[in-house]
Amino acid sequence: MKSVLDHGFVRLIDTMGDDAAIVQAARVSYGDGTKSVNDDAGLIRYLMRHHHSSPIEMCEIKLHVKMPIFVARQWIRHRTANVNEISGRYSILPNEFYVPAPENVAAQSKVNNQGRGEPLHPELRGLAVSKMEVHGGEAFDLYEALLDVDEGYGLARELARIVLPLNTYTEFYWKIDLHNLLHFLRLRLDSHAQYEIRVYAEAIAEIVREWVPATWSAFEDYRLNAVTFSGKEMQVLAEIIAPTVPDGLLGQVAAERLKELGASGGEAREFLAKLHTLR
Amino acid sequence: MKSVLDHGFVRLIDTMGDDAAIVQAARVSYGDGTKSVNDDAGLIRYLMRHHHSSPIEMCEIKLHVKMPIFVARQWIRHRTANVNEISGRYSILPNEFYVPAPENVAAQSKVNNQGRGEPLHPELRGLAVSKMEVHGGEAFDLYEALLDVDEGYGLARELARIVLPLNTYTEFYWKIDLHNLLHFLRLRLDSHAQYEIRVYAEAIAEIVREWVPATWSAFEDYRLNAVTFSGKEMQVLAEIIAPTVPDGLLGQVAAERLKELGASGGEAREFLAKLHTLR
Amino acid sequence: MKSVLDHGFVRLIDTMGDDAAIVQAARVSYGDGTKSVNDDAGLIRYLMRHHHSSPIEMCEIKLHVKMPIFVARQWIRHRTANVNEISGRYSILPNEFYVPAPENVAAQSKVNNQGRGEPLHPELRGLAVSKMEVHGGEAFDLYEALLDVDEGYGLARELARIVLPLNTYTEFYWKIDLHNLLHFLRLRLDSHAQYEIRVYAEAIAEIVREWVPATWSAFEDYRLNAVTFSGKEMQVLAEIIAPTVPDGLLGQVAAERLKELGASGGEAREFLAKLHTLR
Amino acid sequence: MKSVLDHGFVRLIDTMGDDAAIVQAARVSYGDGTKSVNDDAGLIRYLMRHHHSSPIEMCEIKLHVKMPIFVARQWIRHRTANVNEISGRYSILPNEFYVPAPENVAAQSKVNNQGRGEPLHPELRGLAVSKMEVHGGEAFDLYEALLDVDEGYGLARELARIVLPLNTYTEFYWKIDLHNLLHFLRLRLDSHAQYEIRVYAEAIAEIVREWVPATWSAFEDYRLNAVTFSGKEMQVLAEIIAPTVPDGLLGQVAAERLKELGASGGEAREFLAKLHTLR
Repeated sequence: MKSVLDHGFVRLIDTMGDDAAIVQAARVSYGDGTKSVNDDAGLIRYLMRHHHSSPIEMCEIKLHVKMPIFVARQWIRHRTANVNEISGRYSILPNEFYVPAPENVAAQSKVNNQGRGEPLHPELRGLAVSKMEVHGGEAFDLYEALLDVDEGYGLARELARIVLPLNTYTEFYWKIDLHNLLHFLRLRLDSHAQYEIRVYAEAIAEIVREWVPATWSAFEDYRLNAVTFSGKEMQVLAEIIAPTVPDGLLGQVAAERLKELGASGGEAREFLAKLHTLR
Repeated sequence: MKSVLDHGFVRLIDTMGDDAAIVQAARVSYGDGTKSVNDDAGLIRYLMRHHHSSPIEMCEIKLHVKMPIFVARQWIRHRTANVNEISGRYSILPNEFYVPAPENVAAQSKVNNQGRGEPLHPELRGLAVSKMEVHGGEAFDLYEALLDVDEGYGLARELARIVLPLNTYTEFYWKIDLHNLLHFLRLRLDSHAQYEIRVYAEAIAEIVREWVPATWSAFEDYRLNAVTFSGKEMQVLAEIIAPTVPDGLLGQVAAERLKELGASGGEAREFLAKLHTLR
Repeated sequence: MKSVLDHGFVRLIDTMGDDAAIVQAARVSYGDGTKSVNDDAGLIRYLMRHHHSSPIEMCEIKLHVKMPIFVARQWIRHRTANVNEISGRYSILPNEFYVPAPENVAAQSKVNNQGRGEPLHPELRGLAVSKMEVHGGEAFDLYEALLDVDEGYGLARELARIVLPLNTYTEFYWKIDLHNLLHFLRLRLDSHAQYEIRVYAEAIAEIVREWVPATWSAFEDYRLNAVTFSGKEMQVLAEIIAPTVPDGLLGQVAAERLKELGASGGEAREFLAKLHTLR
Repeated sequence: MKSVLDHGFVRLIDTMGDDAAIVQAARVSYGDGTKSVNDDAGLIRYLMRHHHSSPIEMCEIKLHVKMPIFVARQWIRHRTANVNEISGRYSILPNEFYVPAPENVAAQSKVNNQGRGEPLHPELRGLAVSKMEVHGGEAFDLYEALLDVDEGYGLARELARIVLPLNTYTEFYWKIDLHNLLHFLRLRLDSHAQYEIRVYAEAIAEIVREWVPATWSAFEDYRLNAVTFSGKEMQVLAEIIAPTVPDGLLGQVAAERLKELGASGGEAREFLAKLHTLR
């Protein structure tokens, strides 16, 4: 179990399949077509590079996750997953809410409409955090009074819970196939993702790296560390940068260097083809 | 636009297809097989009765809905839909939160683990409602102070919002096909659904009834008003009730009466077959 | 591995979760609400009866299936699954095609627009089967000639395959969660499903029964053996049958008998409520 | 209606929404965050660039498509769509099958395991095509004899159809949201897609371009014409190419040129950031 934020966690419950299961499924699909790829890691790289996602869907993972409700609301937008969340209609929610660590208390970003920018002044940070703490405590006091049959109001659980703040902790079982999990991670590991969900993505990434190391490595190379240039950007590169590059350089040297870094012959050919679009 | 709860609404944005579009698609699928069904309403009843859902998926609806966040969290569990929700990372959320009308302030149900039961004593109700009102106001005061750059903390929007309560209003565009919408309505019109989402389902049901009247009518008969007996229940009916029914009654009379109520010959035959399982 | 049809099979590759995993997930969701249900089988029956499908989605199964293409085309219509099918673009398809056993060679049904009815005359059956055998052989001869680089045409695999008949065998890895699998089985075990897919459903049903016996048993009672009466049918039952039943019979006796058959108190109450709709 | 292949077509049935509907939905989600983007086309480019797909899902299209079964089998692998296909259990399939035009009759590719390469020798092409034509005719003769009640076998439709070849035409209604349609087009417009499905993708692309021109244009720039370099490839570019580029060139000049091509200030900044990863 990995602790995340002040009261949250990510806990691995179960997995189905692994790198070998992806290869096994791919060999059903592509049959003779996979013979030329010698090793499993190479085949997985091939699948990832060409967006052949169906063999990667053959792995499944089940996690138990506890997070603040505002994080759960972002999380749940990923629809291709199975979810069993604790219900505030059936259960009394425990008195636990998220308060950011002072170093994460920051101002609205000036360049990014959705994110945070500079940390607040230390004094303001401390005050903001303590306001949140007091507010969370009062909300739970009210919740408990609304629920209390003897000395409070005896309100139905489904109604009492509506006063709880969005930083209240919730938890769920979450089951998802590896392809869709990688898509989730790609979005939620991004620097534009809100810090409070990114730390969950990082905890899950560690689990995935151990579970399917070859797939993770291909994912890093072809997704996390990849850079995409738009059509217009490629045109600018071709106009402005390519002419300054001495002849022949964009070519064998680059392809050979890529092979040194572990690329297959096929991948080196594809790289050359991309470079040629710059000439 | 239909008002729902104290500040919410359901607003129809757009529809694609109608009863006729369902029939048109069904005739592609079932071709010659649909010739024996004379009229469109009859064909739609046939599709609904036999769970031939794909022609019903050929209609699509887009709604603009405003509801409290705790309702949105139930709503979003229906995964087969497209959603565009207002983001508290990009926008400052307006100061609007749901407070139940006093007549809906009720105690936890004693028989139903998830629902509410008897209304609270009128005096308690008034107090509970006013506590909720005060609490919501304080939460928004804190939210606004946290956001305020000049006289408050200048906190990033994505962090400030986490103190808002679950009864804060949110809104989204929601697009869904008719088959999945009917599934949503079946679950959310149910008496066990929480009151605060049921009233949205009722508002949508009115829209659907006007939009696709033949489909709605079949849905009422085969889903909303239908009763399912388990295998064991059918066994009990056969053992205990069927023997007391005079011979011949379970038969032509019932089938004829069903036809009077608008059933086709095929449906009457299917009804007889079910009754025979009771003999 | 279970053999199905003349060359097909269903082979279990892997499972995730079991009856206990469903219970584990349900207890997260329903928490205190599940305490009153004493045993796991009872909780699973409760989930199935009330269409609480998300805990049932927490189990996953992976199968390797080989079937004729016309069966695969029906199968693939179930969209909530992961599939890795052998590709005729990458691989040369083995010379295997389905020919029905003579006892399954039947005429078009006269009552059912989609199914088969009476068996053909034995002599006609034999002839029809032998025509199919000859035709399949010729199609594969042509396929192989089109592919043959040395003595044939050297055609690309993706083009040569288009002459193969719909009874050619294909195979895939198929991964699906238990809830969606049960939905598949419900449709494909039905007597209206085509025989050639029904036998696959039956082979899978045996696997599921061994894998999750409590869930299978609840599924049989609440889905496979259940009977649904439409609103109109319930009205006819109330008008014509209920009045002939002596007072009091629709009541405690039936409910007690249902409990003898293993129903919980809650289920007996729900049964009484349904019977009351008949009064 | 656009004709495709020898007997196929793509026919537009209905659309919901357009470029303006995407903008309308995006402004709900991103609210104040979208104010800085002046025009609709700019906002759509922003959504596409940042993979904000939910507003793009707010458009829906319904097509009537007729294609060979082997094309339909690839098509149907895109699961996020609604489909109503003609059923060979209900209907007698018309005598229409695809035969490739001679110029498309090609050998297996030597470099690409899944595709076709050099055209066959003209004489072989003619022979191969005529073999296919004869074979298709014979298959339909057998199909019709198997069905024929009077002079043939009177076999059920669901069984007779299994002798038909994979190039038999089928047809369906297909309804999909714009985001998933663009994903389909990206895969099926690719040069590695089989020719026979690519021509359908091209016909649909024309429809989409007319329907949502701003979205199509952003899709072309950020998806169809974009080039992605893997992490390793970026490393090679940084090691081998970047050092040869004179200082300062990777910078303002490129960013200015991108703006001339229609990029926003934000996009130019993002471009610079990518170029910096090369230093």
